[in-house]
Amino acid sequence: MPRLVECVPNVSEGRRRDVIDRLAKAIRGVPGVRLLDQTSDVDHNRSVFTFAGDADAVTAAAHALITSALGEIDMRTHKGEHPRLGAVDVVPFVPLAGVTMEECVAIAHAFGHEVAARHQIPVYFYARAAMRPERIRLPDIRKPQYEGLAELLATTHVPDAGPAVLHAKAGAIVIGARPPLIAFNIELDTPDVKIAKRIAKEIRESSGGLPSVQALGFELTDPPRAQVSMNLLDTTQTSLATVWREVERRANDAGVSVLRGELIGLLPLDAALQVTADALKLENFERSRVIESHFLE
Amino acid sequence: MPRLVECVPNVSEGRRRDVIDRLAKAIRGVPGVRLLDQTSDVDHNRSVFTFAGDADAVTAAAHALITSALGEIDMRTHKGEHPRLGAVDVVPFVPLAGVTMEECVAIAHAFGHEVAARHQIPVYFYARAAMRPERIRLPDIRKPQYEGLAELLATTHVPDAGPAVLHAKAGAIVIGARPPLIAFNIELDTPDVKIAKRIAKEIRESSGGLPSVQALGFELTDPPRAQVSMNLLDTTQTSLATVWREVERRANDAGVSVLRGELIGLLPLDAALQVTADALKLENFERSRVIESHFLE
Repeated sequence: MPRLVECVPNVSEGRRRDVIDRLAKAIRGVPGVRLLDQTSDVDHNRSVFTFAGDADAVTAAAHALITSALGEIDMRTHKGEHPRLGAVDVVPFVPLAGVTMEECVAIAHAFGHEVAARHQIPVYFYARAAMRPERIRLPDIRKPQYEGLAELLATTHVPDAGPAVLHAKAGAIVIGARPPLIAFNIELDTPDVKIAKRIAKEIRESSGGLPSVQALGFELTDPPRAQVSMNLLDTTQTSLATVWREVERRANDAGVSVLRGELIGLLPLDAALQVTADALKLENFERSRVIESHFLE
Repeated sequence: MPRLVECVPNVSEGRRRDVIDRLAKAIRGVPGVRLLDQTSDVDHNRSVFTFAGDADAVTAAAHALITSALGEIDMRTHKGEHPRLGAVDVVPFVPLAGVTMEECVAIAHAFGHEVAARHQIPVYFYARAAMRPERIRLPDIRKPQYEGLAELLATTHVPDAGPAVLHAKAGAIVIGARPPLIAFNIELDTPDVKIAKRIAKEIRESSGGLPSVQALGFELTDPPRAQVSMNLLDTTQTSLATVWREVERRANDAGVSVLRGELIGLLPLDAALQVTADALKLENFERSRVIESHFLE
């Protein structure tokens, strides 16, 4: 039985190439871990690393990354558009195969307590690992940002692990467990961004749409085109196939056709196979029906 | 880089459970090979084993299966509906990952010559491994069946390897290389088998339809329903998505809706992902975008 955990830390450094390379090297240096994807954004001044392996290897790599980042990044001088609380801003653990969400919650908790003890840094648990309802959503925890966190540490932001004292250089760390997140965009055959914004509003959960879907309408410039940009937080609740159908129907109702889908980063096998099963109306289609699934490590 | 070859031998025994178990055990006994699927049909008196691994492991398992089958099966007393030439009737090698079709052709040829030498049995090469155009299609080679083969061994059926003398107990073996084959059925919301038969005729390659598609119309009894039953011989030529669309369109034109798809046995990852990419209009969607693909052995 393959036992695969994914970890997708977001680090507050997206500009200094040499630093980013050393952070990636810290992850790659851990045997049994594979760095699957790495994306840096200069405006956000932020990098996202996606790596996976068994639980021990993945937590060892996350420790290595944190140790490296704490030596390289100083939040007192960090600037960037993206909200953040710390040098290693958020560390989600994601069950991929042969691992339950409950196990990932336990991994996140053990990891968070160890990080807090090693580095004397405040730790918050979020998403499925949250200890309080108001800490489920990342934006809620991150609202004060690094600059405003110190004065809230004794009131709304008492840490779930570690000291109630800001780590001056590294801020705080948010650690959690969540289902795989898929970033998926749909381009419409119109330059009219209003249509994309309206569809996004109709389908996103926060305005009463599809569960576990975040969506925004964007305007692409070259060529000019409206885009519905989405995060699917839990494809067992709303699949890629459902999202496609709901966007396509609304676009068609507005007299607009759907041009193409765009997948950002990676997606889990089961999310891809859900679309296969939907398109071919296959009942009880499981990953074991795919030949290669028998050869996962 | 994973190097995966699949082998799908068809053996002329589908009734004696103890014999079938011993054949499966012979395959499983080879380290590095995984028996992925095993199906026996009593009417056909025939079993199909699907196993995979690297080239050396897979050929070792195929040798083990043949040695076992030659000890267990006597074609002089074999009866069954399905056309066959021998105890081990056909042994196709299929490239799954990190292996080219040319390599599988070379594997088939080396394996066939070794089998012929070890067992003094006539061997024919078929599909991509065929040495003559009239031996590409399995039904053409198999037409005389075991009972009629002896008298053709010096004329139309001179073996590609081994003696031009029938192995009285085991007949002959057809060995080859082919792309993955997918057995896929579509159920129509009608008991009228004529509609399924007409659609099958329109879409199958042999009557001018879709390339690399074999199709027949069947009548299911419980509940009574028409079914289009297909083999997709090469999904790079005609994908599952195309077949689904073509059957659905023709059914809808006849005022009938499509109820469900049914996949028999296994399918390769790339064939499943083709459907995902088609449904979401993803460009350049490759298996590396699937997280788990990085963890194939």
